[in-house]
Amino acid sequence: MRTERVRVRRLPKRAAYDRATIHAILDEALVCHLGFVHADQPFVIPTLHARIGDRVYVHGSSASRMLGKLTQGVSACITVTLIDGLVLARSAFHHSINYRSVVLLGIACAVTDPEEKLAALHAFTDHLVPGRWDDVRSPTPQELKATSVLYLPLQEASAKVRVGPPVDDEEDYAMDVWAGVLPLRLQAQRPEADPRLDAGIAPPGYLTAYHRGAAHART
Amino acid sequence: MRTERVRVRRLPKRAAYDRATIHAILDEALVCHLGFVHADQPFVIPTLHARIGDRVYVHGSSASRMLGKLTQGVSACITVTLIDGLVLARSAFHHSINYRSVVLLGIACAVTDPEEKLAALHAFTDHLVPGRWDDVRSPTPQELKATSVLYLPLQEASAKVRVGPPVDDEEDYAMDVWAGVLPLRLQAQRPEADPRLDAGIAPPGYLTAYHRGAAHART
Repeated sequence: MRTERVRVRRLPKRAAYDRATIHAILDEALVCHLGFVHADQPFVIPTLHARIGDRVYVHGSSASRMLGKLTQGVSACITVTLIDGLVLARSAFHHSINYRSVVLLGIACAVTDPEEKLAALHAFTDHLVPGRWDDVRSPTPQELKATSVLYLPLQEASAKVRVGPPVDDEEDYAMDVWAGVLPLRLQAQRPEADPRLDAGIAPPGYLTAYHRGAAHART
Repeated sequence: MRTERVRVRRLPKRAAYDRATIHAILDEALVCHLGFVHADQPFVIPTLHARIGDRVYVHGSSASRMLGKLTQGVSACITVTLIDGLVLARSAFHHSINYRSVVLLGIACAVTDPEEKLAALHAFTDHLVPGRWDDVRSPTPQELKATSVLYLPLQEASAKVRVGPPVDDEEDYAMDVWAGVLPLRLQAQRPEADPRLDAGIAPPGYLTAYHRGAAHART
């Protein structure tokens, strides 16, 4: 998926261009940041995404300015970022974070095929909570009409990953200050029932055991 | 800070334009997503930020393509997003997330004054971990030279916030499915000492009690 435009120039040893790495980061990230240009001004908007194969879908109201702009075949960028920890070095200069990110460039394509649109809506719901789609009411024809779905083909993308402890200047290792990594994780708290929910309906297992990403499942 | 370009058009009741709301979201978010245009292509890059008063700073290597482009007085967008929870409705259509985001538009300005540059580097370090700057080695003249610092003035910005339970269609409330919110929080795990750290140096209190945001401090 590597092209000159997505080649990682800064710290190239952190770069990855393989499909498995890029897929895993896209799938774990809950939201993406979608970039597009309108009247010479770049806009970056957070929005839900979902991947099916080599397409990354976003959606929104058919009435939205962003979606309307993007269906005109313009260049876009989808970026996702996972924060894994704070890297505390002995010098201010070498402080960093551990993260995994993907930058995807492309021309947005509107989804017009009804079957693909429904598959994408299924993917958005299950991207939030795997298995949720089967438990809830499916979209009505009016809801489908009110929703625009777009995708970027996963053709021109790169990942960037930082892992591990701080890297300090050799003379700083003798300093008497704590150094290392403070791991961070997006963790689920106790489910909060809708005030109108029947008290007899318990939260399903996909909520009480909720986690994001394969790495989290192991711990 | 409201202008026509940042006015929230979709679901305007979620919008906020006041300084206190915008500051709090910017300060709690660990990273921002920085948008800029290069050769007609929008790029969205995750990077650390820090706010001092009404300036939002970003930094990077003086050799970076992104920073070089941004010092040429081009339009940029800084977006931060905090994820607060999954909103599980009774219909697929009404699924959402609870979030707080800020979109800031502006022309990036390079910081050339050495005192402002040092203050910004101090702010980046303490944005990661409040109090950290005082414990670590300050930047050398070479490190300062190797770092470019830019800011966007906090003049044209909007926040968007969703809170609370799902909002379902009236006829769906009778469905026999769990609905509500699964709160999510970026939580610190146990600090991992650098393998080269002297075993006698314990993690400081700002790590063992680490949290992001005033709201998290209360719980």
